[in-house]
Amino acid sequence: MNEIIKSLYNRKSMRVYEEKSIPQEMKKVILEAAAQAPTAGCQQLYTILDITDEELKKALSETCDYQPFIAKAPMVLVFCADCKKWYDAYLEAGCEPRKPGIGDLMLAVTDTAIAAQNAVVAAESFGIGSCYIGDIMENYEKQRRLLNLPDYVFPAVMLVFGWPTQQQKNRPKPQRCAQEHIVHENTYRSMDDTELREMLSHQYKNSTFEDWCKAFCKRKYNSDFSKEMTRSVGEYLKQFE
Amino acid sequence: MNEIIKSLYNRKSMRVYEEKSIPQEMKKVILEAAAQAPTAGCQQLYTILDITDEELKKALSETCDYQPFIAKAPMVLVFCADCKKWYDAYLEAGCEPRKPGIGDLMLAVTDTAIAAQNAVVAAESFGIGSCYIGDIMENYEKQRRLLNLPDYVFPAVMLVFGWPTQQQKNRPKPQRCAQEHIVHENTYRSMDDTELREMLSHQYKNSTFEDWCKAFCKRKYNSDFSKEMTRSVGEYLKQFE
Repeated sequence: MNEIIKSLYNRKSMRVYEEKSIPQEMKKVILEAAAQAPTAGCQQLYTILDITDEELKKALSETCDYQPFIAKAPMVLVFCADCKKWYDAYLEAGCEPRKPGIGDLMLAVTDTAIAAQNAVVAAESFGIGSCYIGDIMENYEKQRRLLNLPDYVFPAVMLVFGWPTQQQKNRPKPQRCAQEHIVHENTYRSMDDTELREMLSHQYKNSTFEDWCKAFCKRKYNSDFSKEMTRSVGEYLKQFE
Repeated sequence: MNEIIKSLYNRKSMRVYEEKSIPQEMKKVILEAAAQAPTAGCQQLYTILDITDEELKKALSETCDYQPFIAKAPMVLVFCADCKKWYDAYLEAGCEPRKPGIGDLMLAVTDTAIAAQNAVVAAESFGIGSCYIGDIMENYEKQRRLLNLPDYVFPAVMLVFGWPTQQQKNRPKPQRCAQEHIVHENTYRSMDDTELREMLSHQYKNSTFEDWCKAFCKRKYNSDFSKEMTRSVGEYLKQFE
């Protein structure tokens, strides 16, 4: 197994950091790794917000489902899918661009997440831990105001970085599903009862499928923050109608 | 610069491949690298379709904006954002899950693209080239039928892999924008006329901003495939209303 594969396999989320900053030079390399990621038509359909203001970090730690570790992270990046900058450039150049549509947004969101993951892999190569915060998609009104987001700019992904504590490094990486349940050959296969139970068997090992799913569904899928995500994303989508 | 950063910086899209297959063992490692990517709540909100059927590859090369190189690639993966499998598991377990919403889809799309990029980085470490195909989001009716996609499953990203020809390896990597135009400090800054021109100056060096933008806008943004993407994604979104 080469070093790159090893790094990809070993990387896990880190949420507690040493009180130690990230050198500017490393930050620049991480940001450049993001920019060097594959991007549709070399358009880089994203803008990265580098959150350096401590008050703003604190505010985001609250609007992102009250996760105080965000405020303590030495590096916080918000990756926005950006359908505005090209639209503005086209207008400036005297083109007649159509208004950004939902397809443009989806392409930009994938572009954005691809770039973000390059930042994660780059950071990991320096021993810098990271954690994705999906909650950045929530609270449309508050987060748009905090980040000064105009129409056609959607905060797709937040990433929090820092030097992990020893306890975080020791934490076992959560086990993934077996490949056979994740990879289907040629066409999509709706999984039956037996396969669904098998797919999640590493999750409910000390419980039953029913009990584990009920607790997880309550905590995640049917949670308030999850419903808020759909409301908030719905508000962003109105810009693209 | 460490090996990982070097690999991330150097990786570029490869669209012409040697007639040489990818060993099953390597494919497994690449797929596992995808599965080991960061994922919201360890949910792996995606299903990867491994397209091995030559007829299906050929069909996709047509429905994805007629790009014949897709049919010739030794490895073709469609990364689907999957909001169905967990919903099915919850139902099976006797939970009362809400219907998947647009927030779930967005979270799944980011999860999916993050996993896909790990596959790209893993492949690159073996010298295997790759190319993203955004067109997989187009042609809702045809591609859903070809891939047997049920409701709540959205083909977010297609990746095509192969051993690049020497000509492809020699091709220069397209230059990215300067970091100052991609990274904004704290809040979003709408770029003015001067900055938009500067941001794209490496693109129109042998032309003018106006001419380059007009040609690019016509070829990309105002193209039929781009409009089709918005129509098609709109059809998928109806499932999440």
